[in-house]
Amino acid sequence: MKNKVLLLIEREFEDMEAMYPFYRIQEAGLDVEVVGPSRGIFHGKYGYPLKATSTPSECKIDEVVGIIIPGGHAPDYMRRYPEMVALVKDATAKGLTIGAICHGAQMLIEADVLRGKRATCYMAIKTDLINAGASYEDSEVVVDGNLVTSRFPADLPVFMSTLVGMLKEMQVAA
Amino acid sequence: MKNKVLLLIEREFEDMEAMYPFYRIQEAGLDVEVVGPSRGIFHGKYGYPLKATSTPSECKIDEVVGIIIPGGHAPDYMRRYPEMVALVKDATAKGLTIGAICHGAQMLIEADVLRGKRATCYMAIKTDLINAGASYEDSEVVVDGNLVTSRFPADLPVFMSTLVGMLKEMQVAA
Repeated sequence: MKNKVLLLIEREFEDMEAMYPFYRIQEAGLDVEVVGPSRGIFHGKYGYPLKATSTPSECKIDEVVGIIIPGGHAPDYMRRYPEMVALVKDATAKGLTIGAICHGAQMLIEADVLRGKRATCYMAIKTDLINAGASYEDSEVVVDGNLVTSRFPADLPVFMSTLVGMLKEMQVAA
Repeated sequence: MKNKVLLLIEREFEDMEAMYPFYRIQEAGLDVEVVGPSRGIFHGKYGYPLKATSTPSECKIDEVVGIIIPGGHAPDYMRRYPEMVALVKDATAKGLTIGAICHGAQMLIEADVLRGKRATCYMAIKTDLINAGASYEDSEVVVDGNLVTSRFPADLPVFMSTLVGMLKEMQVAA
C-alpha cells in the first residue's frame, strides 16, 4: 500500500508549518519522509530543528501519496534546486495530492503547476500567484482537484484536516 | 455543550509540545484556551510565540473538558503559581481529562494527583514522578483513568490521538 507523504524543507521554514504536518501525518497513520536538497538538519525561522532524511533523487515516488510544502523563507531556497522543483512537477503530473501553505506556493509557481487553478497563499506573494496563472482566493483553504493551499499558520487546523482526508483516500485507492 | 480545552503555558515551553496541541485541538473541533499566570505572549524554548488569553481565575471550569500541560522549562515556572497548580488539582477532582507530556508531569507532581497512578514523563524527572507516588512506565503514552502522559516530542502523534479521542468523548458525554 502507498503510504508515504513527502515534506519538503530547506532552511528557515516556518516552524509550525513544517512541524505540525510532520507530526499530524504520523498521527494519521501515514509515513512522513522529510526531503531537502541535501540530507541533514535544517532549522526553522525560530530555530526548530528538522532532519531531511532524503534528497529528491532518493525518493521512491511510486510509494508516495502526496507532498506538503511549508512556508517561511524555505521555499525561496528550495526553488533554486531544479530537482526539488521537478519533484513537485512530477507529483502533480502523477495526480498526487499537493499541499502548500503560505510561501509554499512559491514552489508551485516555480514548478508551473498553477495555470487555470484556484489557489491561495500568503498575501505578500499574491501577485506572483496571479502572474503564474492562478485564480487567487482569500480563504483559509482552497481545494482545486488534488491541489490544497492555505495562507498562514492559523489555517493549519483546516489545511491539515483537509489534506489528511485526501491523503487517506489516496492511500486506500492506491 | 462543553467544548473547551485549557492549554497551560509559561515561558520556555517546548515549542511543539504546546503548538501541536494548540492546533490539533482546533482541528478536532474543540475550543482551545491558552492559560498562563498572566495574560500576554509567552515564548517557547526556540522562541515560538503563543498568547495566553486568560489566567486561572478567569477560566470557566464548567465549560472545560480537559487540560493539556506541555513540557520544556515552562512547568518549572508554572508550578510556582498556586492558582495554576490548583487548576490542575480541581480539574482532576472533577474527573476531567488531563494530558501532560515531558516535564509537564512536574505540574502533576505539584498538584499531588499522581498517588497510585501509572504515568510516564521525561527521563530526567522519572525519580520525582516515582517519589510523588506514581508507578513509572517507559511507554510512548500511558493512560490511567482520565490521566494521559507521554515522554517527549516524538510521542506527540500518539499522545494527541489518544487525548483527542478522550476529549471528544467527554464533550459528547457532557
